[in-house]
Amino acid sequence: MQSLPIRFVLIETSHPGNIGAVARAMKNMALDDLVLVNPLRFPDPEATARASGADDLLARARVVGSLGEALEGCGLVYATTARERDSYYRVVDARTAARRIVAEARAPGAARGAAVLFGTERTGLTNEQLANAQALLRIPANPAYASLNIAMAAQLIAYEILMARQEAEPPPAPARDAPLATPGEMERLFTHLQQVMDEADFRDRTQSGTHLMQRIRRFFNRAELDGNEVNILRGILTAVQNRRRTAGAGQRGS
Amino acid sequence: MQSLPIRFVLIETSHPGNIGAVARAMKNMALDDLVLVNPLRFPDPEATARASGADDLLARARVVGSLGEALEGCGLVYATTARERDSYYRVVDARTAARRIVAEARAPGAARGAAVLFGTERTGLTNEQLANAQALLRIPANPAYASLNIAMAAQLIAYEILMARQEAEPPPAPARDAPLATPGEMERLFTHLQQVMDEADFRDRTQSGTHLMQRIRRFFNRAELDGNEVNILRGILTAVQNRRRTAGAGQRGS
Repeated sequence: MQSLPIRFVLIETSHPGNIGAVARAMKNMALDDLVLVNPLRFPDPEATARASGADDLLARARVVGSLGEALEGCGLVYATTARERDSYYRVVDARTAARRIVAEARAPGAARGAAVLFGTERTGLTNEQLANAQALLRIPANPAYASLNIAMAAQLIAYEILMARQEAEPPPAPARDAPLATPGEMERLFTHLQQVMDEADFRDRTQSGTHLMQRIRRFFNRAELDGNEVNILRGILTAVQNRRRTAGAGQRGS
Repeated sequence: MQSLPIRFVLIETSHPGNIGAVARAMKNMALDDLVLVNPLRFPDPEATARASGADDLLARARVVGSLGEALEGCGLVYATTARERDSYYRVVDARTAARRIVAEARAPGAARGAAVLFGTERTGLTNEQLANAQALLRIPANPAYASLNIAMAAQLIAYEILMARQEAEPPPAPARDAPLATPGEMERLFTHLQQVMDEADFRDRTQSGTHLMQRIRRFFNRAELDGNEVNILRGILTAVQNRRRTAGAGQRGS
């Protein structure tokens, strides 16, 4: 996946474990630009441990002494917040913000990218820090317990950014052992099943024959059977028929 | 926010910290039904520490000894996966799955809810565990580094569930005559089918017995049968058995 100029900026983070977890969350979602403003402890073995396979991203993280430095080269800046509304700033939900961020990062000829700011674990961003952002980004949450862990917040925003990037791309076709059964194969399966039901004198008390068969068709169709699976089912039906015919032949032959 | 019957099931989780982080992630997104199948260490101070303000949810988490017990009372079951596609199951992205989960949990008169399964940190879910799900849930991620921490995965899914709840127009739940079949009803269906296959001496040339039954389970699970549909299938199986027994009795009696 191509790199986009989208930066996460962590300000005065207290727990190195959280820095590592943010690095992993970013790499999981194909982001790679992490900047740390005055982290309390960094580098730190706890950060490396939590980064897991994203230690490369952590090693490339830049440590700077001021928010101004961290934002150099950025255009659009969102500040994360737990507030639902604010007197001064637009509060945008994470999904909407992510779409805007991706559009900005992709804008042709734009030398600038976008940044997302994360404040300290205990107190978030100060008003002074907020003043560097064009808008606030809020993650929808349980109003009774809206305080997310910082790495969780980074994970959710990174995910929404990935989702926004993929919105234009078509989803891959499902993989299968064998192609989906053809309508003809399904028809033959239903005919075969009907035969076995007739031979067994199966009558559903609650529904008429056509209604019942329609219903059976529906749930087999819902299963999206492939050709091999149809063969397994028909094998079972044939085994049931052979067994009964053998028994029947024995009876008649006696 | 009203409680919905949506359950997260963690199977054999190794790190108690992850259990605590999942509890917090769920409460942040207004979910409250957590079930733990054979956790390695629980309760544990690390779980409590990571749960932060969600210690109430952690205290109410149920610990059970089997996946079957964990799924009691659930209809729709999604298993989390990192696979992009699968030969046997539909792979649904987290957003689509969340909409479906919410629709199912809200379906009028449905006593039953939905469950999401999470495997161990190192190896995920086994094929046997997967065979309890109707579909796989995948979180879109960086193809070069797609392995998410379990608590992060839970956070993202819980978030998508909250987002789906907040969407103005939830998609209608699929119309059904009856609620989704319970895990117990499905178990009895598979046992019954196995009996009929044994009685008919059905042997699949290409696959071993357990492999075959797993495959059959998978496509019946994919069909998302309701209780009436299970009854129709079992009615057919019973008719087949009776007919054969009558024929056999006639044979022996002659």
